[in-house]
Amino acid sequence: MQIGILGTGVVGQTIGARLTQLGHDVMLGSRSATNEKAAKWVSENAPRAKQGTFANAAEFGGIVFNCTSGEVSLEALGAAGAANLAGKTLVDVSNPLDFSKGFPPTLTVCNTDSIAEQIQAAFPDAKVVKTLNTMTAAVMVNPGLVPGEHDVFLSGNDAGAKTQVTDLLRSLGWRNVIDLGDITTARGPEMVLPLWLRLMGAFKSPIMNFHVAR
Amino acid sequence: MQIGILGTGVVGQTIGARLTQLGHDVMLGSRSATNEKAAKWVSENAPRAKQGTFANAAEFGGIVFNCTSGEVSLEALGAAGAANLAGKTLVDVSNPLDFSKGFPPTLTVCNTDSIAEQIQAAFPDAKVVKTLNTMTAAVMVNPGLVPGEHDVFLSGNDAGAKTQVTDLLRSLGWRNVIDLGDITTARGPEMVLPLWLRLMGAFKSPIMNFHVAR
Repeated sequence: MQIGILGTGVVGQTIGARLTQLGHDVMLGSRSATNEKAAKWVSENAPRAKQGTFANAAEFGGIVFNCTSGEVSLEALGAAGAANLAGKTLVDVSNPLDFSKGFPPTLTVCNTDSIAEQIQAAFPDAKVVKTLNTMTAAVMVNPGLVPGEHDVFLSGNDAGAKTQVTDLLRSLGWRNVIDLGDITTARGPEMVLPLWLRLMGAFKSPIMNFHVAR
Repeated sequence: MQIGILGTGVVGQTIGARLTQLGHDVMLGSRSATNEKAAKWVSENAPRAKQGTFANAAEFGGIVFNCTSGEVSLEALGAAGAANLAGKTLVDVSNPLDFSKGFPPTLTVCNTDSIAEQIQAAFPDAKVVKTLNTMTAAVMVNPGLVPGEHDVFLSGNDAGAKTQVTDLLRSLGWRNVIDLGDITTARGPEMVLPLWLRLMGAFKSPIMNFHVAR
């Protein structure tokens, strides 16, 4: 499959690399078509890795991942272009964290709204699925790094898009995929970040994940 | 031990009943010294159960539990009286949920503050420990209801108070008590409620709990 990834940070690079290993063709998109981090990533993940602008990556992908920082996601998706996202599954992995006042960060949106809902509202023709934002990048693509049973959450309005994302998650090794409901349920996983960050502080490691025992 | 419990709802009654079974003397406090729910609870949990006003219960307890709804906790604690809370461990189990606009509720305070921090700020001589707010009452007092490993979180500024609460949690059957840090870390467990409520919807049962796999 052709997959577009918006964002050249650790999350975008890690998901992109793993998807090339699984046989997908992946284009990493950024503000600039010649972004140096993306160029290095392309050279490390040849031959299935490409780079381009946000618009190039969105146009390229049959599925598009938003791996930009939540604070700038709406701007990056605007640059990607509504037409390039229309009708496509848009996997939102972002967290709207504001580190401007130091640690711990606060959320720029929460409680009565979420970045996932804002993205769905701004791009009504995209099929937004929120997932994978509740763990560190290394665990996203390799859940076996964390021992025992643990879970990944899913929120979105389109059942077909959620099935497509579930299949992709299973190909990454995820066994427990919990469908929370429509896109408004994304508030839950986004608001978990303050606890996640404190747990990372308490355990001095990001290699962990939530499990809902029941 | 003498324990005061503020709030006559399911959480207060359930914690109170279990503590009497463990041999503690418990006073359930409410606005009125003759609250009918509390009277019924006293008759069901004799001989170690008593009832009184918020102030009576706070004065009675060597430890005091805040089991009122988060929206009214500051008012209830004000009625309990700062002098009756001074120097004592104040276990805050509350969640600041606003159901006035229907389901799902929003939080009346979050992100840059928490109800636990507001309580600590309003009652600086109390030793506030936030815990047990991330699960349903039946699981709070009987973690064995949920199979497998799962966790309870702890936030507070006073190490001695956290040790005292940890001992009490262990007597309830809790094996995994995770100390998140000072009282500001209570934002994390409080902001988990939106996810918890959606999980309850997805699983159609409140008998579940979070576990941090690692």
